[in-house]
Amino acid sequence: MESLAEIQEFFDKGYVHYRPNLTVDCAIFGYHEGELKLLLVKNKMITKWCLPGGFVQKVESLDEAAARITLWRTGIGNLFLKQFKTFGNPGRNNPRDAFDEERFYQLTGIELKKDTWLTGERVSVGFYAITDIVTAQPTADFVSSECAWFSIDDLPELGFDHSEMVRDALFAMRIDLYHFPIGKNLLQPKFTLKEVKLLYEVLSGKKLNPTNFPNKLISLGIISRLDEKRNIGAHRSPTYYQFNDEVYEKALIEGLVLV
Amino acid sequence: MESLAEIQEFFDKGYVHYRPNLTVDCAIFGYHEGELKLLLVKNKMITKWCLPGGFVQKVESLDEAAARITLWRTGIGNLFLKQFKTFGNPGRNNPRDAFDEERFYQLTGIELKKDTWLTGERVSVGFYAITDIVTAQPTADFVSSECAWFSIDDLPELGFDHSEMVRDALFAMRIDLYHFPIGKNLLQPKFTLKEVKLLYEVLSGKKLNPTNFPNKLISLGIISRLDEKRNIGAHRSPTYYQFNDEVYEKALIEGLVLV
Repeated sequence: MESLAEIQEFFDKGYVHYRPNLTVDCAIFGYHEGELKLLLVKNKMITKWCLPGGFVQKVESLDEAAARITLWRTGIGNLFLKQFKTFGNPGRNNPRDAFDEERFYQLTGIELKKDTWLTGERVSVGFYAITDIVTAQPTADFVSSECAWFSIDDLPELGFDHSEMVRDALFAMRIDLYHFPIGKNLLQPKFTLKEVKLLYEVLSGKKLNPTNFPNKLISLGIISRLDEKRNIGAHRSPTYYQFNDEVYEKALIEGLVLV
Repeated sequence: MESLAEIQEFFDKGYVHYRPNLTVDCAIFGYHEGELKLLLVKNKMITKWCLPGGFVQKVESLDEAAARITLWRTGIGNLFLKQFKTFGNPGRNNPRDAFDEERFYQLTGIELKKDTWLTGERVSVGFYAITDIVTAQPTADFVSSECAWFSIDDLPELGFDHSEMVRDALFAMRIDLYHFPIGKNLLQPKFTLKEVKLLYEVLSGKKLNPTNFPNKLISLGIISRLDEKRNIGAHRSPTYYQFNDEVYEKALIEGLVLV
């Protein structure tokens, strides 16, 4: 939605194109050199920060909806979005919790009807992705005033049940670390084992046995050693590694057991 | 639903109590002494076998819906049902695929309207559980002709997208084996390490390193050794083990890393 006319159309006749009562919300984690952040959007009409989300269209799959909505709300595309949980507690989506009707009217001149296709319980399918903070530059969409990275340890209060979503997305992501390869879009094409270890430590949120993850990645053929070292000082020249695309892609689909 | 009147009411006015376009489907796996099965129901009005499922009521959470629907459709209660994935591809739930309208009319005398609250795309939230085949006696509900266990290696053709659901439920369950304790309702109160190993082998569908799972369960305090042995022959008297309830329950919520 990129104009007031489109917003009016959405409220009046959105049910033609969108599935009633079905949304997706996406927890986009950002990593860069030892930092883990979360991408949040500030909708002009909602009083609290939220995960980027939106309604699912009738013609698209849930995966397609998650990709389209993340691109629309944040400007970030090409994410590997993974469904982790669906949220459907009665009362979870009451717009009175976080939707600022007065501000909405001031901004749009649109008076909301009391009983529209948007009324009623909504379920939201949660997705998460991990991207590189530096390459992924967030851009706020027309309905948002801001779109920004927040440190995972210092999040603002979130609207609706989005705090629960973030907690569950982190929990799911941390289990997935053991079963799917990660890092291709988070590390440089050539990287050291120390960088792999740091990535796993930061994503898992705990100090890890220093060699388990890297060793297992090597033994499974996900990463392999190059005949090249980084020159960072007289007695310190760690060896470079790289991802093996074929093994990596296969494991993304079939899963594996790390550690 | 336990009468024709209730079925008629459901088709005419179900939207009063049920959420439109939202169902749950449950993959109930059954284990007993080395066998893995799946519970399927044969709805009188649907031509193919299906996972037990149904519509979510407006007043209940998704977890509550899964428990209520499983009990109603199969007679089995007290399951630890775990959400694993939501299915929402456009076209997935076209009733023409598997719903036998003629048979429905013969059985019920109810003529279906073309455009009801049941028309349109439906998403289904998938849950799975694992129970003991012997203690869980399935009973078909009023709308089903049969409710029966099938060997996981020899399933009939399933309706809608339920084959995909079963595949994804198995995949999720096999990842969860590494992160949540299992077995309390599947093994006897006192069991041998060989029985634990067999359980993990059958659920995971592969030959496992013979001691990894049992050893890790012991080191995490999930199971502990008893001062008692099973007497099965002159030179064979394996030691009994039992679950530690407190550690087990905590790990069910917090998760863990096995192997």
